[in-house]
Amino acid sequence: MNAAFETLALVGRSDDARVAESLAALAAHGLARGVRVLVDPGTAGVPPGVERYPESEFHAHADLLVAVGGDGTLLHAAHIAVGHALPILGINRGRLGFLADVTPEHMLESLDEVLRGHFSRDHRTMLHATLAAPRRPNRTLRVLNDVVLQKWQTGRMLDFETWIDGAYVNTHGGDGLIVSTATGSTAYALSCGGPIIQPDLDAVVVVPICPHTLSDRPIVVSRRSRIEVRLVAREGIHAQVTGDGQVVGDLEPDGRLAIETAPEQITLLHPPGHDHFHILRSKLHWGRGARRTDAES
Amino acid sequence: MNAAFETLALVGRSDDARVAESLAALAAHGLARGVRVLVDPGTAGVPPGVERYPESEFHAHADLLVAVGGDGTLLHAAHIAVGHALPILGINRGRLGFLADVTPEHMLESLDEVLRGHFSRDHRTMLHATLAAPRRPNRTLRVLNDVVLQKWQTGRMLDFETWIDGAYVNTHGGDGLIVSTATGSTAYALSCGGPIIQPDLDAVVVVPICPHTLSDRPIVVSRRSRIEVRLVAREGIHAQVTGDGQVVGDLEPDGRLAIETAPEQITLLHPPGHDHFHILRSKLHWGRGARRTDAES
Amino acid sequence: MNAAFETLALVGRSDDARVAESLAALAAHGLARGVRVLVDPGTAGVPPGVERYPESEFHAHADLLVAVGGDGTLLHAAHIAVGHALPILGINRGRLGFLADVTPEHMLESLDEVLRGHFSRDHRTMLHATLAAPRRPNRTLRVLNDVVLQKWQTGRMLDFETWIDGAYVNTHGGDGLIVSTATGSTAYALSCGGPIIQPDLDAVVVVPICPHTLSDRPIVVSRRSRIEVRLVAREGIHAQVTGDGQVVGDLEPDGRLAIETAPEQITLLHPPGHDHFHILRSKLHWGRGARRTDAES
Amino acid sequence: MNAAFETLALVGRSDDARVAESLAALAAHGLARGVRVLVDPGTAGVPPGVERYPESEFHAHADLLVAVGGDGTLLHAAHIAVGHALPILGINRGRLGFLADVTPEHMLESLDEVLRGHFSRDHRTMLHATLAAPRRPNRTLRVLNDVVLQKWQTGRMLDFETWIDGAYVNTHGGDGLIVSTATGSTAYALSCGGPIIQPDLDAVVVVPICPHTLSDRPIVVSRRSRIEVRLVAREGIHAQVTGDGQVVGDLEPDGRLAIETAPEQITLLHPPGHDHFHILRSKLHWGRGARRTDAES
Repeated sequence: MNAAFETLALVGRSDDARVAESLAALAAHGLARGVRVLVDPGTAGVPPGVERYPESEFHAHADLLVAVGGDGTLLHAAHIAVGHALPILGINRGRLGFLADVTPEHMLESLDEVLRGHFSRDHRTMLHATLAAPRRPNRTLRVLNDVVLQKWQTGRMLDFETWIDGAYVNTHGGDGLIVSTATGSTAYALSCGGPIIQPDLDAVVVVPICPHTLSDRPIVVSRRSRIEVRLVAREGIHAQVTGDGQVVGDLEPDGRLAIETAPEQITLLHPPGHDHFHILRSKLHWGRGARRTDAES
Repeated sequence: MNAAFETLALVGRSDDARVAESLAALAAHGLARGVRVLVDPGTAGVPPGVERYPESEFHAHADLLVAVGGDGTLLHAAHIAVGHALPILGINRGRLGFLADVTPEHMLESLDEVLRGHFSRDHRTMLHATLAAPRRPNRTLRVLNDVVLQKWQTGRMLDFETWIDGAYVNTHGGDGLIVSTATGSTAYALSCGGPIIQPDLDAVVVVPICPHTLSDRPIVVSRRSRIEVRLVAREGIHAQVTGDGQVVGDLEPDGRLAIETAPEQITLLHPPGHDHFHILRSKLHWGRGARRTDAES
Repeated sequence: MNAAFETLALVGRSDDARVAESLAALAAHGLARGVRVLVDPGTAGVPPGVERYPESEFHAHADLLVAVGGDGTLLHAAHIAVGHALPILGINRGRLGFLADVTPEHMLESLDEVLRGHFSRDHRTMLHATLAAPRRPNRTLRVLNDVVLQKWQTGRMLDFETWIDGAYVNTHGGDGLIVSTATGSTAYALSCGGPIIQPDLDAVVVVPICPHTLSDRPIVVSRRSRIEVRLVAREGIHAQVTGDGQVVGDLEPDGRLAIETAPEQITLLHPPGHDHFHILRSKLHWGRGARRTDAES
Repeated sequence: MNAAFETLALVGRSDDARVAESLAALAAHGLARGVRVLVDPGTAGVPPGVERYPESEFHAHADLLVAVGGDGTLLHAAHIAVGHALPILGINRGRLGFLADVTPEHMLESLDEVLRGHFSRDHRTMLHATLAAPRRPNRTLRVLNDVVLQKWQTGRMLDFETWIDGAYVNTHGGDGLIVSTATGSTAYALSCGGPIIQPDLDAVVVVPICPHTLSDRPIVVSRRSRIEVRLVAREGIHAQVTGDGQVVGDLEPDGRLAIETAPEQITLLHPPGHDHFHILRSKLHWGRGARRTDAES
């Protein structure tokens, strides 16, 4: 086979037995197909012939990243791949994931399909956030799902202001704010009343978390928008910024959190037959028959 | 067996093959246990020995009503039983129902348990509604789930006022209003943002349907409250009242809809092991693992 | 003055005294500025010198449409202007409107600004819907706000299927479905849990109305998407389609409702200082201080 | 005047100028009416003749507590009064509060009305919570608004189980859980999708905060219910319990949070004309005219 990809890099938590088993099977399968296979030095249980490079060097050696695990592993893979021409194939550990949409029982045939060049490309937008504070260097981050400002170590609500493209939007009271990509719209943002955004729509959604004012609703903005958040100083308030679930730092009263779409995108590969709505139906338990005590049932 | 009940009345739509099969099996089982079994003259496919009375006379002959079907059939049974000492055993046609919580595969043993006196009693409050209009007699109804005021034959929203115990509450704009019992709280009201109310709490919830004002939220009131609704006259508006899904009539601009809890309750019987939260978990797909694209999965 | 526009056409319900007063003042002011002023023959109370043409011919004679009234009047103006190079200036009757954002006290100076060429252009997407049924010609419509499928003359919920770009999305149970533009996102869709969509984002939102399944959430799709809705046949069900609040017709079980963005856009003109977020803050009562019984107040 | 109360105790933050002014005026007015007036030793700016006792001894000397400030001050007053026959009159600092419903401009005449015995009594239920951990003594607290379990110092969601009266309810994923009284239903719980509960309904509402599962809805239970919450152990998770906004301590994986209604109630006094719905309308901006871009406006 003249494979569409020459070198696979595998990522996944090999301390999870199911993941380790899949990693080993994928590695053996790849080698048998004549492609090089790389793993991080910390990955256990892979067959001989697999090469070892730190994850941070995968992009220099591999042309396909295969992520095995839940959507969290895929977020991790995205952070490895971003800025490099390194597409990602996501293989779920068990149940179907929003992002890792190949199940273990189909993973070998799916890998074959992808190696044969039978796949679709799914480009996902990332956000670039800058957390600025007067007395320290800016911190920046790129995220695939969301940047979250939230109250931290306090039961008291935050007050903060939002600005879009330099125009003042609102002063919010509440638990915080989510700025989410289309990809992240089915993650935390969905629990806070945000809409589902189709992956091919280049939009960003700004979702207040438990807002004080009930009409303080999610706003969907264009990918060209720059969103800025500033804290309203109040005694005893502590506001933290996280990106894709990882802590970035405090938003201070004289600081500023700015978010725009990143110039780089991530590319997910899907084997033939990928159906985004099927995943939504499965994950959100849509259409599973009557759920109400209705007169008509 | 010296049965806890002497005469069963069976209700269900015998034009549904699965229901008909269950009705026949229950009838045969009841006769074999030495209890009298009644059905409505329109019920087909029951074994010899079953007696026929109109549903409206069941209360005079039977001491247990067995409802086979969905929650709609159980609502129908409630309307047969209300005002009489006629408890109801609900048997679902297939899946578990909120009200009909015995499944076909367990129905014969459940019937035996009930006939042996092994059951719990679950008293449910009903609402009594009065629809008044100046030029016609009042119409009244009792419901187990809900009384609904809704826009009818129009794409335009309704404006209406609510009063609780004579005190003015609010002027609402929107698609209408639901006044629901605890039983109905898992029906239409749930789709409109209402809370789940535990069946043993004697409360009524007033839920605006798609309200114009986003802070127009559901209000939970005591069972002693009298709720009154009046339409704000506007050209081209048509407001309809339904009770447990059945049309009652128009609410006219100079009319009035008044709702209070009915003096009569309905008694549901549950075989041993009944678990209301198990039904909620099952019907609402609670706790079925991760549903978000989360960093931690 | 060498005005940016030569001929104004005024629309508004002159049977509303406040509207009539504004129409008369605007007409006099326009004539005094040396521009032609047109009204529909049914418009009362305008000064001499105003010309009369049917609304349907405005586009052939006027180069600016001035709509006086609420957002409903502006929707009406959009239907007059669509397909023609006829921008719209919206003047509200009293309070600020989402679309008609000039208040009566500023209308004459705003008109002057616009005639001087001082304005911004705000292009709004419209939807094009096709309602197909096997035994009758297709009906089509264009809307600025939304196309709504809803239950009609029934207390029973609808079952319907949605398809996006030919891919099956979901089978919904509930009161219906809204397909809304960014413009319509602050109208009916907002009451049904939809997000606010910024006007410069070319997106469409599909919002289920009181859905049976609580995870049946709004979906935001690209303006290139084609949305199709089909009814699931069930006895006693009646589904109606409305566009911008006007009845279009029944969706029948063997029919089909298809919605895409229209090729034509509407252009709103805003005098200098227009601030979309100011309108949102004002209409949605954002930031009006504490609204909760909080420990911190 | 033979006053209905002999000794007033005043509470409020006298470092807030508006509050200090009201405290001074109320104190002078009380003394002029011949009643004793007490303040805490830390209260500044009160006229001569006012006696000083620590807040914790107010119940031994006073028969009326007058709280001046926002709803937070009233919560503080509730903690002073609970368990003693000490009713509370709440005077707001500026705007109307949910609990402190007398405005400064009416406070002297309202105080006169109350001293004349012209008032209604409004009994409010409190919750009693027990936070248990294996290696330390139980901590207990009483709250007027709510007990909140929430994620703390982490961006990761909590997993926790709920039990009502010993029956397992659900395993939740999300930001946490609110257990709220009717009084607290218009506080944090309202921002998390909970219903408004009428103060005269003895009910408790359990509201998940940003739940992972969209059908994980608020549940309203009887005041007789005992609610128990246990954490599901997961690495890196930190769950904090707060009561009326004050930190109580960590819920540990082998700990337990139990909540029931407290045996003691709080009594609020309202001058004649008190209207709970008027407060709701005012605080929630109900009925302030059209807020949607509707065809009908």
